[in-house]
Parts: sequence; structure tokens; C-alpha cells
Amino acid sequence: MKITIIGAGNVGTHLGKRLFEKGHEIVEVFSRVPAKAELLANQVGARAVSALSELGETADIYILAVKDDAIEAVAAAISVDNPFIVHTSGATPSTVLSAHSSQYGIFYPLQTFSIDKSADFEKLPMCVYANNSTVLKKLKNLAQSICPNVYEINDKERAILHVCAVFVNNFTNHLFAVAEDILTKENLTLHLLKPLIQETVNKIQQHPAKAMQTGPAFRGDVQTVERHLDFLEQYPDYQLIYRVLSESIGR
Amino acid sequence: MKITIIGAGNVGTHLGKRLFEKGHEIVEVFSRVPAKAELLANQVGARAVSALSELGETADIYILAVKDDAIEAVAAAISVDNPFIVHTSGATPSTVLSAHSSQYGIFYPLQTFSIDKSADFEKLPMCVYANNSTVLKKLKNLAQSICPNVYEINDKERAILHVCAVFVNNFTNHLFAVAEDILTKENLTLHLLKPLIQETVNKIQQHPAKAMQTGPAFRGDVQTVERHLDFLEQYPDYQLIYRVLSESIGR
Repeated sequence: MKITIIGAGNVGTHLGKRLFEKGHEIVEVFSRVPAKAELLANQVGARAVSALSELGETADIYILAVKDDAIEAVAAAISVDNPFIVHTSGATPSTVLSAHSSQYGIFYPLQTFSIDKSADFEKLPMCVYANNSTVLKKLKNLAQSICPNVYEINDKERAILHVCAVFVNNFTNHLFAVAEDILTKENLTLHLLKPLIQETVNKIQQHPAKAMQTGPAFRGDVQTVERHLDFLEQYPDYQLIYRVLSESIGR
Repeated sequence: MKITIIGAGNVGTHLGKRLFEKGHEIVEVFSRVPAKAELLANQVGARAVSALSELGETADIYILAVKDDAIEAVAAAISVDNPFIVHTSGATPSTVLSAHSSQYGIFYPLQTFSIDKSADFEKLPMCVYANNSTVLKKLKNLAQSICPNVYEINDKERAILHVCAVFVNNFTNHLFAVAEDILTKENLTLHLLKPLIQETVNKIQQHPAKAMQTGPAFRGDVQTVERHLDFLEQYPDYQLIYRVLSESIGR
């Protein structure tokens, strides 16, 4: 397919490179920052564009990998007759695109990307949706060409997945940051807990998370919970997290 | 060393087997449940004991791998003159052993064990402590014989590590359980989020967790946070967790 990538951040870069590697033609790469547009464009043999009005060639699909609150404005600025537009956001309904095209959809890789680290397209779930069956078929084919795990996920389901992604990624990472902060202040290191963290994840590969729950709150070991809360007096923010999560575990 | 293992649960079993594999002599295995004592004893060539008063042979070290609130009572029941006793708990001060022996310490593998899964002694940190340098040296040698990562950790440090282990293991697992509960009720599956969970952990191998934080609360994306809180109205317990963690991230 002839593809235009709009946005050269983490998602746009990883998707663009993967699509190019798998033989698709990337015609244009847009970023407001000319250097970013050029950096990605050069890697995928595309023309770099840094003003939306300069988008020239007609592509089979426009992939919008921009910030959530920019999706609609960017879609409005594509001066092509009824383009096939998809966005890559977990949090945004597909319908924000409906005013700008009669053929639109979602191309959402459910993963957290880092600019300096290659993405595991062999493992991540690619969530696709389109508002009619003709473009859905094209989109599924495109997804399957870069990724073995393709799921058709509607707006409602994607919204729920996104809430849950916040729990398992954003909140989990914050718990790691809390532990790291406490340990650093106490001249210890999170390094000591990394095998435990990995094992916590390993366990849920085979078993339901609920069945793997352990610890003082789960056992109802009130003495230990109280001792931990006492220690956390000096970190009121973390003490509240400890209290709320312990109460939820004990429920 | 001649070793007696007291407690044949997860920790006792994994430690006992590892010590045996590495050439130590396990003389006796105690469990209140005769079948459990025998199961482990048979695997490590030891005598099974199911009443503390029957502990017969004198060992060089008594490893107490029993529940936190049983440690003191079990230590009191060892009818040997001034035994070298260690316990394996993250949460309990070493000093609970001081009334029962003049040589005592800690032998704490900082990991979560499953009875059906082998433990990664090559990676886990073994935290040791003893109340005098003679037994500390013995204990360090014992730890190093089964584990390359041995750390001398005092009671205060171990208490802090234990609080932080609750954050990164118990609380993280609970977040997985919350996501699993929501997804199951909505006819989706946590399976879709497992690559994301693994990548969340991969990222902190190289970078501080705080630097890896992303998501709506971190970005100050109030609209998305509000939409998520609205969805969570039906799960008040999870809504509170979402609120408290988002506020802490935004701080």
C-alpha cells in the first residue's frame, strides 16, 4: 500500500519503519518539526513534509500518529478528497475522524514504545477497526503484513483496554518509581528487587493474577501492614497508595 | 554444613532442595504436616520430623522457614543448646531470635516462590545478616554456595526492602488482577496486555522508572483521566485506586 505517516514520534517512527521493512511504500512523512520529518523520511525512503498544506501525493492510507488532542485538527487539514484515515490512539474514539472522511478507522499497536529500542511487532497485539467492511479488510491485511497478532477491536472495547493499560503500565511503573524513590533515599537500590519484579510478571503468564496474590494485606497480617504504614509516615503520598491498595487486596 | 530445615512450604522447599543440590547435608526437615515433612525430606535425603520436640540431631544451622508469627515460638521449641538459628522472613526483625540463642541471623531470599516452579537462585538476591562476625562468615559462605548474589542487609534495611517489595510485587500483582477482573467482565482478556506488561518491566532494566512514566495522568490529559474515572464509576474500589495513583503521578 502507499502510505503517508503523519507524526514522527515514537509510534509513527516504529510503525513507519516496520511498514517500510515489510515492503510497503511510504510516500510522505509529516512532522511539524522538519528535522524529525526528515529523520524518519530518510529511513523509509519517503518525502519529508513539515506543513500539512504541503501534503502532496495521494496515499492509500493516512496514518495519524499524533497526540490525542491534535488528531481532529490534523485530520481536518488533509486536503485530499475523502482520504482513508486511521489514528493510532488507545484513548480516542474513531468517530472524531467521521467529519473528515467517510472511510476511517483505528490502527492501534497496544504497546509502549521507546525511541531507542526496537518494538516487538511479533508479539504486540495490533488492534484494528474501520467504519466499513471494505476498508476494514484493507486495514486487516495491512496489519497482518507487519504483525501476527491482529485483533478487531471496536471503540468501546478499545476504551476499556486503554483504562486497563493505564493500570498495568502507567500505574505499575509508578509503583516501581515509588519503590525506587524510597530505596534511593535510604541508600538502597531497586536493583535488588528486579528479579522479584520479573517473577511477578512471569507468574501471571500461567495463572490468574488474583490466584497469585500474596503479602501481608492478602494474609490479613495486620501487624506487618501497621509497621509498613508507620514507616511510610514520612511519605504521606506513598502511605495513601499503600493504604488504598492494601484495603482493595483485603476486600 | 549440617542443616535442619524447619518448615516445608515454598521457601523451605526451594531452599532445602537448592542446599541439597549444592552438596550440603540436610539432616532433618520439620513440618507440622507429616506428609509435607516427608515429601521434602525424601527429596533431600533427610529425616522427616513433625513434632518440634522430636528434633534430634544437632545441626550446624537451623533454618526457620515458617510463617512470620510462628518464628518466635518455633525458635523457643528447639531443644538444642545455643543453636545457630536463622529465619527467612523479610518482615520480621532478627532480634525475635535473641531470647533463644546467642547466635542468630537472617537468610532471606528476596523472591516470590511458587511450589510448582523452580527458583532462579542464579539471579535472586540472598540477603544475610548475623549478630556476630563468626556466624556471619559461616552464613555468607553458605549463601554464596547456592547463590552468586549475596548481600549483607541489616534489620532496618531489610524492613525497607520488604515495604518496597510489597509495592513492586503485591501491589503490582493487584493492579494486574484489577485489569484482569475488568477485562473478564467486559468479555476481553488480560492476554492482550501481556506484551505491554513485559515491556513495562523491560524498560526499567535500563532506565529509572520515573523517567519511563507515560500516560494521561503524567501528561496532565485531564479529559482522558475524567473519561476513565467515568467508566470506573461501576467499580468504586478500582476508581479510588485510579484516582489515588493518578494524583500521585501528577504530583
